[in-house]
Amino acid sequence: MKVIDWSLYVITDRKIQKKSNKEVVEEAADAGASVIQLREKNLATRPWVEEAQKVREVTRRRGIPLIINDRIDIALAVDADGVHLGEEDMPLVLARKIAPSLIIGYSVSTVEEALKAEKEGADYLGAGTVFPTSTKKDAGEPIGLERLKEIKKAVNIPVVAIGGINLSNLEEVLATGVDGVAVVSAIVGAESVREATRSFRQKIELFRRKL
Amino acid sequence: MKVIDWSLYVITDRKIQKKSNKEVVEEAADAGASVIQLREKNLATRPWVEEAQKVREVTRRRGIPLIINDRIDIALAVDADGVHLGEEDMPLVLARKIAPSLIIGYSVSTVEEALKAEKEGADYLGAGTVFPTSTKKDAGEPIGLERLKEIKKAVNIPVVAIGGINLSNLEEVLATGVDGVAVVSAIVGAESVREATRSFRQKIELFRRKL
Repeated sequence: MKVIDWSLYVITDRKIQKKSNKEVVEEAADAGASVIQLREKNLATRPWVEEAQKVREVTRRRGIPLIINDRIDIALAVDADGVHLGEEDMPLVLARKIAPSLIIGYSVSTVEEALKAEKEGADYLGAGTVFPTSTKKDAGEPIGLERLKEIKKAVNIPVVAIGGINLSNLEEVLATGVDGVAVVSAIVGAESVREATRSFRQKIELFRRKL
Repeated sequence: MKVIDWSLYVITDRKIQKKSNKEVVEEAADAGASVIQLREKNLATRPWVEEAQKVREVTRRRGIPLIINDRIDIALAVDADGVHLGEEDMPLVLARKIAPSLIIGYSVSTVEEALKAEKEGADYLGAGTVFPTSTKKDAGEPIGLERLKEIKKAVNIPVVAIGGINLSNLEEVLATGVDGVAVVSAIVGAESVREATRSFRQKIELFRRKL
């Protein structure tokens, strides 16, 4: 697997976006997002593929990895870099078997789940929800910063923190040692996706320089 | 591709079934179904995989091909024999590319669509809806027996007739020269799936002997 900069992982959400996936991804990519995840719900396969194709063009032109939520068939069809899976999605072991070349991420909220996912072949983890969030109804109870730190310490694969992360709490999240932050509403729901992404990127760079 | 007996292609539908997919498939397979298609709607990937795994065991034990509706990822995950696609599903060309080893079926209702699907790599066609049907709301206008015959004549790949086929019209459908009939409600919605399947099988055998 090629080396990936996980620092600013932006996830689309058309329910809260003011623009199309393609436009949002363009702005985020231009302003410093290092990974894009395309997430769609209740979409038939054909329109899902079409959304993914549009975004794939944008991310390829900018050399940014594209991760598809849940659907391995869509990821393979548009030649995306990876898929992100959770407990309602394809079991990790099967995903690993049918898509050996994809980057596979898995959502975890405990150290136990993190160790299991690493053992089953996950390439990176999405750990959360760190703080309360309105974006994902099934996100569960917030795990907090201490648990996040434990998860990061427990595994050798990259850990991306997710859930309720904004410019105010970004620094304390980064201080846990995670490899990056995944952001939905604070970026794709912002008035200006470009400005929001740029602010996150600046804070991340500032934090790195302090290390 | 191995040679497949397309004569009696049974499609599940939990909305009208009185039993689970596994039980329905067991009964149909024992009583003479030659192909099974598992069709699910609005199911998350994880439970979809679980349904498919249960049915896969049954069909494998009986040596009957299993086709998965729409989802190539599920078909690959459970090592099914194929997928069936329509206009809301994965485009045929992409499906062929990402799943070279799967049998791929495609739904058509005109000669033009049939020729296009054959050219794009479909292994068989589902042609219909032949008669009016209540099972599939988006099935469109009935194509009738004449159109069915034209489609069968136009292509070199197997053609399975679908839509509103029952014991009363079965013989006239078979007389068009199609390779098989796909049945939903008249079998999986019947009081006894076993009896219904057996009746279809007997009529098909009788028709074949007359040829």
